[in-house]
Amino acid sequence: MTVDPRFYAPSGALTLEQIAELTGAEVFGSPDTEVKGISSAANARRGDLVFLEGDGKSAPDISAEASLFVVNEPNRKYLPEGAEGLVSPLARHVHSVAALKMFRLRHIDWSGELRIDATARVHDDAVIAPGAVIGPGASVGEGTRIGANAVIGPGVQVGRNCSIGPGATVFCALLGDHVTLLAGARIGETGFGVMASPHGLSDAPHMGRVILQDHVTIGANTCIDRGVFDDTIVGERTKIDNLCQIAHNVVLGRSVLVAAFGGISGSVRVGNNSMLGGRVGIADHVKVGDGVSLAASAGLFRNIEDGETWGGTPAKPLRQWMREVAWLQKQANPKKSG
Amino acid sequence: MTVDPRFYAPSGALTLEQIAELTGAEVFGSPDTEVKGISSAANARRGDLVFLEGDGKSAPDISAEASLFVVNEPNRKYLPEGAEGLVSPLARHVHSVAALKMFRLRHIDWSGELRIDATARVHDDAVIAPGAVIGPGASVGEGTRIGANAVIGPGVQVGRNCSIGPGATVFCALLGDHVTLLAGARIGETGFGVMASPHGLSDAPHMGRVILQDHVTIGANTCIDRGVFDDTIVGERTKIDNLCQIAHNVVLGRSVLVAAFGGISGSVRVGNNSMLGGRVGIADHVKVGDGVSLAASAGLFRNIEDGETWGGTPAKPLRQWMREVAWLQKQANPKKSG
Amino acid sequence: MTVDPRFYAPSGALTLEQIAELTGAEVFGSPDTEVKGISSAANARRGDLVFLEGDGKSAPDISAEASLFVVNEPNRKYLPEGAEGLVSPLARHVHSVAALKMFRLRHIDWSGELRIDATARVHDDAVIAPGAVIGPGASVGEGTRIGANAVIGPGVQVGRNCSIGPGATVFCALLGDHVTLLAGARIGETGFGVMASPHGLSDAPHMGRVILQDHVTIGANTCIDRGVFDDTIVGERTKIDNLCQIAHNVVLGRSVLVAAFGGISGSVRVGNNSMLGGRVGIADHVKVGDGVSLAASAGLFRNIEDGETWGGTPAKPLRQWMREVAWLQKQANPKKSG
Repeated sequence: MTVDPRFYAPSGALTLEQIAELTGAEVFGSPDTEVKGISSAANARRGDLVFLEGDGKSAPDISAEASLFVVNEPNRKYLPEGAEGLVSPLARHVHSVAALKMFRLRHIDWSGELRIDATARVHDDAVIAPGAVIGPGASVGEGTRIGANAVIGPGVQVGRNCSIGPGATVFCALLGDHVTLLAGARIGETGFGVMASPHGLSDAPHMGRVILQDHVTIGANTCIDRGVFDDTIVGERTKIDNLCQIAHNVVLGRSVLVAAFGGISGSVRVGNNSMLGGRVGIADHVKVGDGVSLAASAGLFRNIEDGETWGGTPAKPLRQWMREVAWLQKQANPKKSG
Repeated sequence: MTVDPRFYAPSGALTLEQIAELTGAEVFGSPDTEVKGISSAANARRGDLVFLEGDGKSAPDISAEASLFVVNEPNRKYLPEGAEGLVSPLARHVHSVAALKMFRLRHIDWSGELRIDATARVHDDAVIAPGAVIGPGASVGEGTRIGANAVIGPGVQVGRNCSIGPGATVFCALLGDHVTLLAGARIGETGFGVMASPHGLSDAPHMGRVILQDHVTIGANTCIDRGVFDDTIVGERTKIDNLCQIAHNVVLGRSVLVAAFGGISGSVRVGNNSMLGGRVGIADHVKVGDGVSLAASAGLFRNIEDGETWGGTPAKPLRQWMREVAWLQKQANPKKSG
Repeated sequence: MTVDPRFYAPSGALTLEQIAELTGAEVFGSPDTEVKGISSAANARRGDLVFLEGDGKSAPDISAEASLFVVNEPNRKYLPEGAEGLVSPLARHVHSVAALKMFRLRHIDWSGELRIDATARVHDDAVIAPGAVIGPGASVGEGTRIGANAVIGPGVQVGRNCSIGPGATVFCALLGDHVTLLAGARIGETGFGVMASPHGLSDAPHMGRVILQDHVTIGANTCIDRGVFDDTIVGERTKIDNLCQIAHNVVLGRSVLVAAFGGISGSVRVGNNSMLGGRVGIADHVKVGDGVSLAASAGLFRNIEDGETWGGTPAKPLRQWMREVAWLQKQANPKKSG
């Protein structure tokens, strides 16, 4: 995906040689080749710089258009024909240096006293409570209510008849119509991505967005991180309870229910009409089908097909988990069961 | 219970016929009968409209005064003699349409620049930090401190010598004296109640309140949802840690301790002097007695009598759980135990 | 440790006799001896008042300089030679009364309309977003960004090139350089410490601080409580995800990773380069070595040596836990395994 200029100000293309000078990485292909965008490998368009990292044991997902790469040695074998780019043992770090040079988060420079920025578009029939702050280029639709001391960041688009709770904060996000955020919801913060850098652990930059579709409800103090370079998406009529964590690049389908303390790790997919009980956790990259039920406090580490009901940690089919619970109780407590 | 006009502005009675016209439900009894209030079935007064939904397999809890019902077919058999009302397969939806027509949350219309509303009553000896916002009709008692950027919603009553933390938000709530809310606490948001509507999943309206009695302490970023039509109540000297979730209609007794990540689902009752370790979860409608201890990370799905100590998920008496843990360890690791 | 006057205004020394009059405790030693400071027993300097409480079955950790004590009967035997002080069955309560008489949290008195206090030192190159509030005596370094509606409390020191997220609140804390707090992070709130008082359960006062070293990142809505009388410390380049709870007096080493919903109880120590998966809980006073890994949803109640990998609840070495999980599954589901 292309970085959205509503949230990230582009500061011009870089040549591979310029990136090499900034980072010490080694160029392959033409040093004058220009990098015009930044992306994940899976969703790159021509001219976007992507990175491949890891031990090289499994083939990465690479878009057919991808042409410019930062790569470590073990992943060179996966480069498509005609690829150009840079080689470095710290491929993600090099990619990040280029990304941060080419794009600047607009809200980093947001300052001043003006509560509602002069360039924000707020509909006449929107209701803005005291202390709410609306950033440059943001948009608030008809009939929408922004609660007291809430924050709508630069470039954020809020549709019609939405309700943004008091003290909630929304950045790098597009909200449909009839979206409800309760108090203290945190939409569009950077995700938890830690990478190796020459100086030790560093935060990986996140340049994606959050998309909340129509009729989505997000509970109090729930966090929905923006994508790394792609989007975090919550589908129509999906309802998320208080104190949940939805990580970067997650895609939740339509009419999904997530009860309190739900924790959904990076890049998880959940199908339509699935139900997650309280305190359910799902490990990263797991795929959950449509119409799945996860019992309260399940910890899921594997993909689940449509229509299944699972529970336990590690999660397994509910009946199997219940059989294990009952069997253990009987075996370990002979007097009671005898 | 009657809807509290400090938080919900009444907009007049409706006849059964008017509700039928709005929703397509079918009237039984006199179409001209007026609905004057909205309530849960269990706590209705004469003239309140209540709903009965579900599969009808168990008898609902109905107040002796209840006279006006929205009901689905399977629950018609539970209607008391002389009942009037409406029939619909989406009984809760019909009830909600009427509720939202008859009462309007006051904070929906709160707007403007005034940090401390002209109609708020703030004691001269209260201390209001910069950025704090206090809504119409709210009251702040002697010696109470409102932290920076905190929000006290319309009609909220805060007693004497309370401390409201920075960035905390309080709506639809009555606070006693010496109540402490730490930073980012979310009091009185709408609960997680999802119902079927003609368009798909919808948020069920919540028109109850939160009551925090004297000397209650609520941790940072903890959420206490308001009741659906009744109250969520936290008893005197009960202390709740950070990042806990207390759902709608919960009643906690006096001097209860809830450690971090405690999750108490809707309509749970917890007796006096009970202690919940970190990350304890309790399923909805469960009743916990006085003086109960729940070990850290317990997941409770059943009622517990006074004085019991339980642990594990699903929770059971602590000794039994520990016996199972020890037995499993011994059986599965023969070398270590041999 | 000495109470930091940037956060707590000292109001003068008390004699033992004065404390006895306030509390009804009984003096031993000279009634005219002056108490000049307040501390934990383990880190007291000469002239600090400390307390010893509990059943006296294990010897408390007492600094060699400690000289002034509030003690209950069972702990009198641990008093060093020449000790003076007070005896009371509610030793911690008596100590708290003295502490609150001698020191007053500065932010309790913070009021007014001034968003950036006249006595705050904000570097010219810092960026302060709309609605942010900065208290008396606070300091914000070069290149640091304070997000919209964030709160920097009285006396808080924020270094250079930090990013304080929107709606975050920071009290009683010292932040190094390049520290990042995401939206809604709660730094320096009082911890969860409940003590017996003559009136029932009371909140124990916390007079310590939070120290966040260089390059620390704290996730959205994560809470880091200040120490009771000592400090809560997060080491250089340690990265903490959203919705975590770090309790009073915790010390995390360098480059520690804590994934979402991590819960670290009071006085826990975690060594350098350790990794905690999602939803890991650690019981109070546990010591975790360097380079330890804890699998997602582990509940740890025991100390762990360097380099270990543990999982499960109660946590044990990962291989052992997995063996138990596999064994139970096989035994309880004979058809599948047969």
